[in-house]
Amino acid sequence: MRQSLLFSKTTKEAPKEEISVNAQLLIRAGFVDKLMAGVYSYLPLGFLVLGKIEEVIRQEMNRIGGQEIFLPALHPKTNWQQTKRWGYPEMFKLKNREGKEFGLGWTHEEIITPLARKFISSYKDLPVYIYQIQDKFRDELRAKSGLLRGVEFLMKDLYSFHRDEKDLDRYYEKVKAAYLRIFRRCGLKKETYLTLASGGTFSRYSHEFQTMTSAGEDTIYLCSKCELAINKEIIEKEKFTCPKCGGKKLEVRKTIEIGNIFKLKNKFSGPFNLIFKDEDGKEKEVFMGCYGIGLGRLMGTIAEIHHDDKGLVWPGEVAPFRVHLISLTGAEKEGEKLYRDLLDQNIEVMYDDRKDKSAGEKFAEADLIGIPLRVVVSERTLQKNCLELKKRGEQKAKLIKIKEIKKCLN
Amino acid sequence: MRQSLLFSKTTKEAPKEEISVNAQLLIRAGFVDKLMAGVYSYLPLGFLVLGKIEEVIRQEMNRIGGQEIFLPALHPKTNWQQTKRWGYPEMFKLKNREGKEFGLGWTHEEIITPLARKFISSYKDLPVYIYQIQDKFRDELRAKSGLLRGVEFLMKDLYSFHRDEKDLDRYYEKVKAAYLRIFRRCGLKKETYLTLASGGTFSRYSHEFQTMTSAGEDTIYLCSKCELAINKEIIEKEKFTCPKCGGKKLEVRKTIEIGNIFKLKNKFSGPFNLIFKDEDGKEKEVFMGCYGIGLGRLMGTIAEIHHDDKGLVWPGEVAPFRVHLISLTGAEKEGEKLYRDLLDQNIEVMYDDRKDKSAGEKFAEADLIGIPLRVVVSERTLQKNCLELKKRGEQKAKLIKIKEIKKCLN
Repeated sequence: MRQSLLFSKTTKEAPKEEISVNAQLLIRAGFVDKLMAGVYSYLPLGFLVLGKIEEVIRQEMNRIGGQEIFLPALHPKTNWQQTKRWGYPEMFKLKNREGKEFGLGWTHEEIITPLARKFISSYKDLPVYIYQIQDKFRDELRAKSGLLRGVEFLMKDLYSFHRDEKDLDRYYEKVKAAYLRIFRRCGLKKETYLTLASGGTFSRYSHEFQTMTSAGEDTIYLCSKCELAINKEIIEKEKFTCPKCGGKKLEVRKTIEIGNIFKLKNKFSGPFNLIFKDEDGKEKEVFMGCYGIGLGRLMGTIAEIHHDDKGLVWPGEVAPFRVHLISLTGAEKEGEKLYRDLLDQNIEVMYDDRKDKSAGEKFAEADLIGIPLRVVVSERTLQKNCLELKKRGEQKAKLIKIKEIKKCLN
Repeated sequence: MRQSLLFSKTTKEAPKEEISVNAQLLIRAGFVDKLMAGVYSYLPLGFLVLGKIEEVIRQEMNRIGGQEIFLPALHPKTNWQQTKRWGYPEMFKLKNREGKEFGLGWTHEEIITPLARKFISSYKDLPVYIYQIQDKFRDELRAKSGLLRGVEFLMKDLYSFHRDEKDLDRYYEKVKAAYLRIFRRCGLKKETYLTLASGGTFSRYSHEFQTMTSAGEDTIYLCSKCELAINKEIIEKEKFTCPKCGGKKLEVRKTIEIGNIFKLKNKFSGPFNLIFKDEDGKEKEVFMGCYGIGLGRLMGTIAEIHHDDKGLVWPGEVAPFRVHLISLTGAEKEGEKLYRDLLDQNIEVMYDDRKDKSAGEKFAEADLIGIPLRVVVSERTLQKNCLELKKRGEQKAKLIKIKEIKKCLN
């Protein structure tokens, strides 16, 4: 992509009402635009990052047997009445011209469970794992944290269906491992803690993946003995003792929840009569699990964790491009050639080919945008038959021979 | 993908209330499920087709310089008041808990135009081409045509921004060509006519891409002299004469509109004050074009055109898989080996490995699902060291040597 053609532009100042660091940086660097509180547009750079995150999630979901589908956002009232969740205050409700009532989906148990009933009737149809990446809506009053708390937000939601609790438990552990791989690939491994959270009325615990950041709105207690984290909402019940090792030294952390996995058991198969005939000929209720990750929230969290005072510092696998190639005055011809070479090698590159920007402006913008590797070609570097390489986040640049660029990128 | 693990199942009967052929076939074959009138879930097979269509569209949009973004579905009332379109009867409206009003987007001029204003200020910023593939909503009373008329539907919408009408005209022709490439790649070339349609109050004509099918709800008049089509809505104004060649022999056709391109000119840049400074230093209004394709409608149209009495017949580029491999009793081992070989060669294959289905059942289901190439391995074919190959839509199968399968797929 040529930067001269890029739709978005960087700005020095973020909108004043935007108080979160992730939104400030992502707006200034031209990744997103705020339409209203909790509702953001993804601009070309932001869309690229979103696509990278989506691909990481998709690969890990497919690896654990997930089949991808796409469910509607517009839901009939009746489905939600069946589970007595129509009254949920954060659900947007609307009517069509004929007065029929609908809700906008903030989760999809009410849709996937009756759908699964059409295809599951025997133990032979189980287990099955279904997921989607889809837009959700939530009437959220405190949407002040940029991409961390959305009114409209993309979410990956996986639903698993099992013949018994043992099989659910087995798959639950597989999802746990897949989630840890996703967060590692998104550059959040070090800061993310598997956290015990409330299991609702039917499971003792669920698990959250909580990432340590000062922007977080959650509080966890971290056991310094066994590294288990416990969400504040349940720690009081546990009398400030680690439920795993009994440790009493718990450290408080501000965190953001970037994933949640939940054993639904038969909570939804009951209301929707999702039953199957087992090998013994008996009809039994299907056991379910649900597993969510918000993509925008994940992107916002990455921005909260990976930035410095100059701008964003994208982890490699979710960066919009791998290389930010910059040509300075007098080196345009070599810049063009290098750009074509990198494209020929299938390397994702943004090429700053702009002629009306100074070197200083180009470097400042590159730092703000945060592509992992900056490659500069200028009259000065060309005199030495060289390019200047600098990793984002490192201070020192180094000169390399032009013909060695391939090696440095592999 | 192993068919034994596939979430969906085929059925012999479609739901009784479903009168359209596309929905009947797509539901019976397990591609989609109807949640309510005009609102469908895409199941794994349907999601694969949707992905293929999406990829064709994305490639052609990128080829004409499109930059992909992702805009929200939830819109502030104020944006729509600015263009006096808030009263549009097919717009879903809703309120949040604080009483603030929103609409669900059925198009995005009201969002993209003020967004473009943040980045366009000089002639140097033009032209620019922005598109998205995104979920739209329309309070549609007559949603009886399956995927052809959606209440919730995925749409590709491209918006172009230009310094003058001449540049808009130039790009408009490029989009026209891109659209024809898209419909050709989706297998609709022969049936699709470029059609003159109403240009609203500010352009003489817009263009539609109308596909001939008995399921269509539109009527076009086709000039038998120059092959131009004219939408019924404007033919009376033209006094039943072809506006291009003056021909008077016009044939009536039932069609479905699968694409629409429109010169918006300054219709939206006016209300949103989208202006730029030209080379002569003067401030001028930006000229815009908009270009839409409904992905679900395209999928439904492909189903209407490409089926026979046994089921769907997918065109190669949008088929869910390239090969439907079927192993019969006694050939399971060779089936497994072949399945692994095809995967190793990166060929998209669905493998019918089910042990509880007869050959007849497997063949009938394969015909219903409509994957382009059926490959059968059985005791009978193995005796001759062969496989049986049959193209969907052709009657005759042929035997080929197992080791020649690679050649037949290339």
